[in-house]
Amino acid sequence: MRIEGMAKAAGVALTWQPFLLGPVFGAQGWDTSPFNIYPAKGRYMWRDMERISALRGLAFQRPKAPDMFPMNSVKAARLGLLALKTPKGPALCRAIFQAQFEQGRDISDGAVLGDCLARCDLPPTLLADSTAPEHRPALRAATGRAVALGIFGAPTFEVDGELFWGDDRLGQAFDWAQAE
Amino acid sequence: MRIEGMAKAAGVALTWQPFLLGPVFGAQGWDTSPFNIYPAKGRYMWRDMERISALRGLAFQRPKAPDMFPMNSVKAARLGLLALKTPKGPALCRAIFQAQFEQGRDISDGAVLGDCLARCDLPPTLLADSTAPEHRPALRAATGRAVALGIFGAPTFEVDGELFWGDDRLGQAFDWAQAE
Repeated sequence: MRIEGMAKAAGVALTWQPFLLGPVFGAQGWDTSPFNIYPAKGRYMWRDMERISALRGLAFQRPKAPDMFPMNSVKAARLGLLALKTPKGPALCRAIFQAQFEQGRDISDGAVLGDCLARCDLPPTLLADSTAPEHRPALRAATGRAVALGIFGAPTFEVDGELFWGDDRLGQAFDWAQAE
Repeated sequence: MRIEGMAKAAGVALTWQPFLLGPVFGAQGWDTSPFNIYPAKGRYMWRDMERISALRGLAFQRPKAPDMFPMNSVKAARLGLLALKTPKGPALCRAIFQAQFEQGRDISDGAVLGDCLARCDLPPTLLADSTAPEHRPALRAATGRAVALGIFGAPTFEVDGELFWGDDRLGQAFDWAQAE
């Protein structure tokens, strides 16, 4: 929610890069989110997000049911990749995160993604377009690049090969970019 | 290295609590440090510590050999627990962390711990004392309490049952304590 403003203030160019966490986790040997595999850590992480959201005045909902996390994000990520070819892409990415984490909606549901598109004044046809065969390889390639870069979670901020993992390293990532 | 100064500035009472990570990791199903189990994450974490140490002007050495991490910290933790009954306990804890992470020394070595004691003007006899049968249950109890609290890593800062994990949550822990 805050990266665009920070990038502008820092004078740093920003490129959003959706990828799938499933294969990234799979490369670590995890068959689901580590939040689910390690209950003590998972409980802590949800509480941590709740506290940080409150500090920043952001709405936050924990997943209502175990099967609501992790959500299948394939459709959302493909849609994000296509939308990011337009200037409204970042707004769509934020809208999708808000649908899941603020409103507790299911982002694997096409109707939810349609609402996100509408909210950003993007054409509803983008959703069907994003599933076309010519757009499918992009997400696979992006995910492969994430694994090759050594990424193991999201969000990760990459500055010329230097990785910064997690919201709490965002400021450091901008400092690094400015020092280059 | 910075917690004492922050506690003083915040007017918050601070109690150091050594515990063993091995059984805490064991409770998550890990037989060694997750840095070793998940290589991509491990590589990142060492790099992250290197960067943060540099930003804070702290010396930092990565473990020179795979068998140098994780180190066996049983002696160090028992010694820390006993030293914390004196006002010099926190200084000893810092000295032990510095021996491992700044100087790359082996803290399972009694001679290294002896140097730490000397550096803090604590009696060398404390090391032998800390292995006495009457002092052994304290570390087991502390580790059991850590697991029961839902702790899964270190450092963890606890404020009346509320957990804050990792150096990057230290400021938040003090804010929480001050708001109470």
